[in-house]
Amino acid sequence: MELTPGNVTVEQVAAMIDHSLLRPELTTAEVEAGCALAARYRVASVCVRPSDVGLAVGLLGGSGVLTGTVAGFPHGSTTTAAKVAETREAIAAGSAEIDMVLHIGRLRSRDLTYVEADIAAVVEAAEGAAVKVILENAYLTDDEKVAGCRAAERAGAAFVKTSTGFAPGGATLADVALMRATVGPSVQVKAAGGVRTLDVLLEFASAGVTRFGATATATILDDLAHRQRHGTPVPTTSATSGY
Amino acid sequence: MELTPGNVTVEQVAAMIDHSLLRPELTTAEVEAGCALAARYRVASVCVRPSDVGLAVGLLGGSGVLTGTVAGFPHGSTTTAAKVAETREAIAAGSAEIDMVLHIGRLRSRDLTYVEADIAAVVEAAEGAAVKVILENAYLTDDEKVAGCRAAERAGAAFVKTSTGFAPGGATLADVALMRATVGPSVQVKAAGGVRTLDVLLEFASAGVTRFGATATATILDDLAHRQRHGTPVPTTSATSGY
Repeated sequence: MELTPGNVTVEQVAAMIDHSLLRPELTTAEVEAGCALAARYRVASVCVRPSDVGLAVGLLGGSGVLTGTVAGFPHGSTTTAAKVAETREAIAAGSAEIDMVLHIGRLRSRDLTYVEADIAAVVEAAEGAAVKVILENAYLTDDEKVAGCRAAERAGAAFVKTSTGFAPGGATLADVALMRATVGPSVQVKAAGGVRTLDVLLEFASAGVTRFGATATATILDDLAHRQRHGTPVPTTSATSGY
Repeated sequence: MELTPGNVTVEQVAAMIDHSLLRPELTTAEVEAGCALAARYRVASVCVRPSDVGLAVGLLGGSGVLTGTVAGFPHGSTTTAAKVAETREAIAAGSAEIDMVLHIGRLRSRDLTYVEADIAAVVEAAEGAAVKVILENAYLTDDEKVAGCRAAERAGAAFVKTSTGFAPGGATLADVALMRATVGPSVQVKAAGGVRTLDVLLEFASAGVTRFGATATATILDDLAHRQRHGTPVPTTSATSGY
């Protein structure tokens, strides 16, 4: 279904956004401000750095906004044991979702047994919490993207996700279409890296993406609210990315 | 002391290089080729991804080249427990050195108690193996670089290191001079990120750097050998970075 500013609500779009607070240089004050923004806009979740899970859970209690975090991020080349330990610690601290990076090098080496077992171990450690498997498409051929999606689905992933936001490239329309066509209906697709405008978000959502990693959350949602009130986009000079 | 192609040997320069095999997309075959290159050039060590420690240790046994790896890499924002678990696993698998990333966000938040305790926990987990503390200077002011160096020294680091190689900037001459002037004589300085030529390496070594993270190992060492034989640099068209 084609989604447009005329047929979605601000609440519906907000419910598709994981507000990303993953940049390594963010200060504690910036993480706190980001959590406040997430609560104000009622997004699906914040995606924070592993060391910030406790802080975010404390700030977001009662807000309806979940706290999620990452494992093996952003390179995916830590050991399976390390990814499992990170996942267990995050779940114990209150993380409701885990965005893990699959082993990019082993996928490119066609060691799909390793790739699938690595994901499955994190899914098991997550104890039912949704696991989103980041493929980091910037490094992959289309064949490798398909193989990665299939390994993730077999291993019990809830989502396949395009990108970390820290590689040379992020989400593309071609990639989300390929990923959506590859996985079955029980696996969702998350786009991240470069989703900075409402128009891109709606274009990707129309292609089947149901969750977005974004830092431009305020820009995107303010733009939708403005268009619905006034019929025109927010003047670009007032657009801010916030945290 | 000013180092030049005329007063250092290839062996001396090789002994200052940690051959870097950290890129997330490297295949297993590329890691194997990188270890073979490291053994051929007799560098100090390879610095491999955590999941490759066992492979590298097996390949490099008897070569005189150490295997090292990373912890909390490249963002430094995993939990202290995760960095400790990674370090223990790496040491058990035969890693002789650990390059850890300090918590950049907490350093920028001036939470120096956290930063120092995070490093000290890794130093303890390393059981005497050298810990190199990566500051990731690209994100820091000079004051923050100094504070990071001091925290690393207090926590027992063997080295302070400029960069991961994955941030917007790498090692600079100004930074290595600042770091060398900040830490005492028992702490060494490692430069990484952008050390791609012999001339840069020797310039930094003259400023007190004793270890380098490099991917252009073959280029650098071939250039030195060529200059010593012929008095001129290797023609640039034959320079290759290798793995």
